[in-house]
Amino acid sequence: MKSARSLPILIGRKPVLEALQQGAAIEKIFLLRSAAGEEISAIKKLAKEQNVPLSQVPVEKLNNLSRAQHQGIVAWTSLLQYVDLQNAISHVVEQGQNPLFLLLDGITDVRNVGAIARSALCCGAQGIILPTSSSASLTEEAIKTSAGALRKILLCRTPSVPQALDVLRLNGIQVLGTQMKGSIPVFEADFSAPSCIVMGAEDTGISKDVLRRADVLIRIPMSSDFDSLNVSVAAGMVLYEAMRQRLS
Amino acid sequence: MKSARSLPILIGRKPVLEALQQGAAIEKIFLLRSAAGEEISAIKKLAKEQNVPLSQVPVEKLNNLSRAQHQGIVAWTSLLQYVDLQNAISHVVEQGQNPLFLLLDGITDVRNVGAIARSALCCGAQGIILPTSSSASLTEEAIKTSAGALRKILLCRTPSVPQALDVLRLNGIQVLGTQMKGSIPVFEADFSAPSCIVMGAEDTGISKDVLRRADVLIRIPMSSDFDSLNVSVAAGMVLYEAMRQRLS
Repeated sequence: MKSARSLPILIGRKPVLEALQQGAAIEKIFLLRSAAGEEISAIKKLAKEQNVPLSQVPVEKLNNLSRAQHQGIVAWTSLLQYVDLQNAISHVVEQGQNPLFLLLDGITDVRNVGAIARSALCCGAQGIILPTSSSASLTEEAIKTSAGALRKILLCRTPSVPQALDVLRLNGIQVLGTQMKGSIPVFEADFSAPSCIVMGAEDTGISKDVLRRADVLIRIPMSSDFDSLNVSVAAGMVLYEAMRQRLS
Repeated sequence: MKSARSLPILIGRKPVLEALQQGAAIEKIFLLRSAAGEEISAIKKLAKEQNVPLSQVPVEKLNNLSRAQHQGIVAWTSLLQYVDLQNAISHVVEQGQNPLFLLLDGITDVRNVGAIARSALCCGAQGIILPTSSSASLTEEAIKTSAGALRKILLCRTPSVPQALDVLRLNGIQVLGTQMKGSIPVFEADFSAPSCIVMGAEDTGISKDVLRRADVLIRIPMSSDFDSLNVSVAAGMVLYEAMRQRLS
């Protein structure tokens, strides 16, 4: 059974709990606000441990997602596999590669996420980090827009941006926040070191957490006073710059 | 009266002829294949002189475009102004600017054209060249995707790509064709000289005319063997590289 957004769905407490217990990839859980009980507690705990986004919703939303008896819970299963961020970094380092990650800080448009993944893979990035609270669900449309890149790049979910930044720091990976008013032009940043590029939402930009904790804030210089780049194009330019420096 | 594609339309021989005579901006003319007569000849002549795309179509297409008596001809008026390529180049030079143009060689997706115009303006390009035979019509959607950039950049229509390349050459503007198998990586090209970047269609790439006549064929190097960039992202990277060189 498929939802309107083309992700297979799980309906009811037992199917969702069992999927979590088996470590199946789940894209998102929708839980009735008032739902309670032992199974619900277990589901919440496992979802948290596995960084599965969990959204508390009114009954109308659930009825919309499934006409069957949903017992206050519906989940979208994922078309993709997610990896723990620390495991992803260790994997990259063990392969002898120089880490290049991308953190999408509030980018919720599936087409933008897809386009950015496509550029990331082309430019040699190994992984994309998605905060569970503010990311697009990776639907078939996202995968299609990525030309399949989302299936080939490491995907890491993180419960919070600060937590991801801590993990990156502990692994010696510098964090470069991209901002229109960043202090240095992107070509003056040094991408030869292990790096994580942060791109923010098209309207609000990167979050305060990143502004405060980034090692450097970079900007794409503008030749005209018309200073508005599409976020997937901007991501492409920063990724290109990282690749250019690493190749030359 | 608006067409489905949100461009105001002109219906019938006299309105179209008068618009052409007055030099009004026309996006595209749809002409019945069998249409003939003095007015039609005059329309064809003026359309050619003014680089207005003219499409010969069956009557069903015209009936689709207008329910009114169309006399075998319907035209979309343009939301934008077009400039002659030579005039555009002269204007840029007179302003003391270093020419940076973009030729879109068969890019027919309005969203891609819009996104590319947005990047072009940000990166300091002054003009975009559109071949009349193979370009997207610049609808409201294109303008919206460009965030208004299409209204601020010089737009030049050309009857043929070879003719545009000749005009560029005569003005001392080098032509850089972008191709996946281009002979040099984009960062080895010299964008300090007056330049025109050519981007080809997402599926077929740049045309044989450009392959044969470009001064240099550039490629965006790929870090991974997954070598498929979205054309508007690829255009953004090449434009970024041109800007980077000109700024630093």
